[in-house]
Amino acid sequence: MPKIVDHAQRRDEIAVVACRVVARYGFEQATIVRIAREAGYTTGMVAHYFDTKQDIIIAALRLILRRIEHRLTRPPEGGGEPDLLALLSEALPIDAARFTECAFWTAFWGQVAADKRLKRINSLMHRAYMQLFERCLARGWPQWTGWSTDTRQRVLRSVVTFINGLTASTVASPGDWPAARQIEQLRLHLDMVQAWADRPTQPDAGPARLARARR
Amino acid sequence: MPKIVDHAQRRDEIAVVACRVVARYGFEQATIVRIAREAGYTTGMVAHYFDTKQDIIIAALRLILRRIEHRLTRPPEGGGEPDLLALLSEALPIDAARFTECAFWTAFWGQVAADKRLKRINSLMHRAYMQLFERCLARGWPQWTGWSTDTRQRVLRSVVTFINGLTASTVASPGDWPAARQIEQLRLHLDMVQAWADRPTQPDAGPARLARARR
Repeated sequence: MPKIVDHAQRRDEIAVVACRVVARYGFEQATIVRIAREAGYTTGMVAHYFDTKQDIIIAALRLILRRIEHRLTRPPEGGGEPDLLALLSEALPIDAARFTECAFWTAFWGQVAADKRLKRINSLMHRAYMQLFERCLARGWPQWTGWSTDTRQRVLRSVVTFINGLTASTVASPGDWPAARQIEQLRLHLDMVQAWADRPTQPDAGPARLARARR
Repeated sequence: MPKIVDHAQRRDEIAVVACRVVARYGFEQATIVRIAREAGYTTGMVAHYFDTKQDIIIAALRLILRRIEHRLTRPPEGGGEPDLLALLSEALPIDAARFTECAFWTAFWGQVAADKRLKRINSLMHRAYMQLFERCLARGWPQWTGWSTDTRQRVLRSVVTFINGLTASTVASPGDWPAARQIEQLRLHLDMVQAWADRPTQPDAGPARLARARR
């Protein structure tokens, strides 16, 4: 069915351009007219594939999620166990292409609170995103399955929150966050989280008690 | 000079409304017309105080920074040493007013990459923001001055990145991040960072070597 394949390809192509346009000009300036022009199509042609600008944005989000998923789940070159830091660095804005994706993602976060439909889409995306990172941590840390459910939940939230923070910080202040610094800071975070999760468990030795004991 | 006082107050008042409008409707929909209407003024009246929408946004940013600064630097009730977790929680979207500020901040991050003037303003804001958090950490951790400059820099970046991550994550997915969870996750982060910074220093025992040793 060549026509259907073409259709999906064309949608993806427009979504890629939309991602770039949002990253470069912001949500506001990313009009259908501009996206069409950058893609080399007429507005009518784009309208044939997408009803609204919001639909294009959602297609772009899905495409980025698919790309990140692909990068975070592919087997490491040369086989063997994947290195967790290398794996998770794939989600950071460490080169021009990833910066564009992260800038789009940050622009999206900035719109979610104000848009009911984006809110719904985001909660689906968010779930998929958390599951993806959970799979990564389970692949990268052999101890993962030995940790309690509560520990795993806190570790997952901590790592994803930190990566989101690196994403927003780098997009807002790229001069402060060259790739090597992002990776070094993520490495430190993974080390700290792992050391905490691997701590010898004692009755009521959670972080709350540790914090109290330190005061 | 009552006229000047009035002028500054009026600007602040419009900035507060702009913050709320951006948080609720997004950057795109936060037009001067809408901001004026929500503030109960005519567009002409708002134009008397601000030339462009961008000027209003910048005034709102400055106002939020001033507010956070006030909350993070005031002495604790009852005197004594401030509790670092309580202090830093002031920057999190843990209630409606703080959520509005954080939603505005996230919307701003989403625009920075696309706007040269916002980029310049952001780098000034960013510096002030980092200095503010540095003062907080120095107040809350008596060991701060004993840590090496490198350790202090990594700790500061780690804490601010994590707070930025909590901000963006909560604004995008508020259902996942009730206030108690934000605070608990920040508490864990502070515990981990402190434990790392307090580690006994050994020659070449930085995180890179530890990570290699664990593989």
